[in-house]
Amino acid sequence: MNAKLESLQNWMGEENIDVSIVTSKYNVFYLSNFYSEPHERLVAYIAIKGQTPFLICPSMEVEDAKKATNNVEIIGYLDTQDSMELLTNEIEKRVGLVKTVALEKEHLHVARFESLLKKFPNAVWKSLEDKLQKLRMVKDSDEIAIIQKACELADFAVEVGVNTLREGISEMEVIGQIEYELKKKGVREMSFSTMVLTGANAASPHGTPGATKVKKGDLVLFDLGVVYNGYCSDITRTVAFGDINVEQARIYETVKTAEMKAVEASRIGRTCAEIDSIARNHIREAGYGDYFPHRLGHGLGLSVHEYPSLTETNSLPLEKGMCFTVEPGIYVPNVAGVRIEDDIVVTENEPLILTKFPKELQIIKG
Amino acid sequence: MNAKLESLQNWMGEENIDVSIVTSKYNVFYLSNFYSEPHERLVAYIAIKGQTPFLICPSMEVEDAKKATNNVEIIGYLDTQDSMELLTNEIEKRVGLVKTVALEKEHLHVARFESLLKKFPNAVWKSLEDKLQKLRMVKDSDEIAIIQKACELADFAVEVGVNTLREGISEMEVIGQIEYELKKKGVREMSFSTMVLTGANAASPHGTPGATKVKKGDLVLFDLGVVYNGYCSDITRTVAFGDINVEQARIYETVKTAEMKAVEASRIGRTCAEIDSIARNHIREAGYGDYFPHRLGHGLGLSVHEYPSLTETNSLPLEKGMCFTVEPGIYVPNVAGVRIEDDIVVTENEPLILTKFPKELQIIKG
Repeated sequence: MNAKLESLQNWMGEENIDVSIVTSKYNVFYLSNFYSEPHERLVAYIAIKGQTPFLICPSMEVEDAKKATNNVEIIGYLDTQDSMELLTNEIEKRVGLVKTVALEKEHLHVARFESLLKKFPNAVWKSLEDKLQKLRMVKDSDEIAIIQKACELADFAVEVGVNTLREGISEMEVIGQIEYELKKKGVREMSFSTMVLTGANAASPHGTPGATKVKKGDLVLFDLGVVYNGYCSDITRTVAFGDINVEQARIYETVKTAEMKAVEASRIGRTCAEIDSIARNHIREAGYGDYFPHRLGHGLGLSVHEYPSLTETNSLPLEKGMCFTVEPGIYVPNVAGVRIEDDIVVTENEPLILTKFPKELQIIKG
Repeated sequence: MNAKLESLQNWMGEENIDVSIVTSKYNVFYLSNFYSEPHERLVAYIAIKGQTPFLICPSMEVEDAKKATNNVEIIGYLDTQDSMELLTNEIEKRVGLVKTVALEKEHLHVARFESLLKKFPNAVWKSLEDKLQKLRMVKDSDEIAIIQKACELADFAVEVGVNTLREGISEMEVIGQIEYELKKKGVREMSFSTMVLTGANAASPHGTPGATKVKKGDLVLFDLGVVYNGYCSDITRTVAFGDINVEQARIYETVKTAEMKAVEASRIGRTCAEIDSIARNHIREAGYGDYFPHRLGHGLGLSVHEYPSLTETNSLPLEKGMCFTVEPGIYVPNVAGVRIEDDIVVTENEPLILTKFPKELQIIKG
């Protein structure tokens, strides 16, 4: 039994849960190593207390599922079959009287839930999401190695973007160039819509990229990430196109120092709230507290936003293997928008910084 | 009251439904004209029998929602509020005793459904999806004009792709070039992951684009679509890179004729099954029946797969304003993969073909 399933099984034992039904593609992958985007079809991984898990998927995916998994029984269904009926029958066959079931309540939809309710009308339904998020929050060394690779590609993407800057080029053109070069390296998917924002757009917390053109004196903000083997990276860098003014430079240095202080403090036992406060206090003391309107960072892994959340109120202590972003920003309308973001991993010693594109202010000659 | 809401209200009257709760972004947009990607937050449009509808969204989106909508009450909530509690209270306030509720059962998740069950434990829950799909299936002239524009961009994208072909270029490089040129035109989103498949990859029904390089004698398949103002296009063209052999050419002509016959037959009153059969029979008669393993086409609009489904068994008659793809294909392993796909609209007379890139076999000189 792998360590992830073992931890889930232990929790099921403690909570007296007979069956866990996992239906989101990330969690199915996390537990089974089988990645599938089934669209409206069902792919479900079923953990049963004290038994071997099984996985239900469309027949045409059975061979792929067998190759990807280990010690998981694979059951295929045809489009002409009712996949939920098959699933509930297979559960009943293995468990008999089903008393307590854990579900991804923020993923499973009502139509499928009604099938469960029909078969097991007296079951108690518990939420599985928090447990799986907590499991996923701490990465093993294989996961960290993959995220490291996703971060190298993100560094490369920022480099492409910075090298593409010239007077009059539009935000969308820069994005196009970045993604073109990534595709040439075989990248199929970004973690989220690539953001390149210049000048006033970068200074608006709700800026979206468009036809705005880069001009001298702009700060240009890049926020992007790459999916590699299912795992996400997420980097932000802000560079100057031509010379910038004193206040813009001051804002840049404030963000950079806040970021580096928070990264440096990210050690086992410190809380998420402490790390957030270290960056936030630095920004407040510089007089920009009102212009940093978001949390300091978020976990990342199979999804680009996961546990832990680095907010002013999250008392969760950091553990070895947690992987998250540190991304303070200052956005002063019509003056400057600056955000600097790294992906880091908590280790036994100093934090491991996975994103490596330089943070010293880069002044790009136009 | 707009025609879409009026039709929903009429159905609610006939089916004795007190409240319809719409939570998917496409359907919220369809009924309210407010497009929002709320991620894990709630945006819901609530139609109440005989009353003005209301919409619940995060506070920061209230202004946008007011601008986008007409005759819809907008109610914002803060992240610190329980949005489902607000929603159920607002329904109770307006309806009193709630007997029957229609939901998007394949969208609403269990956690939100539990909030509804708690507030209205005796309600009957009906499915709303089929009704909304049927409403969306017939496009009005505004919608057709938008899809037309999305199709023009898809034509342009294929043209870029064809012009990019050269000996040794990889599938991913061609995709990168296509999307780069689209971004320069301001396109932010594709309808789905762009497919460029060459040679043996095009001949595999499960081919995914990668590092495979284009070489002389390949058939190269482009399948892509563009989102414009929320609406999707979807085009497939297959071209020859250098000279192809007699069987490849024969397969191409078979697909092309099957496609054109099916398009030509797409008139009011013919059934989806008939249209599918016209293409399928042509392909069968040419001896390739076993190599056309998918349905003829699918509706498209706000989503890239919607009603109607053009299958051998769908007896639904075509109506004026239906918009769908016609996309027969023949995939003979190690010989040829050819698919040709247009987006068309059923009119009072001959079908309107929205995608216009030529279908005569294009032989690209290497």
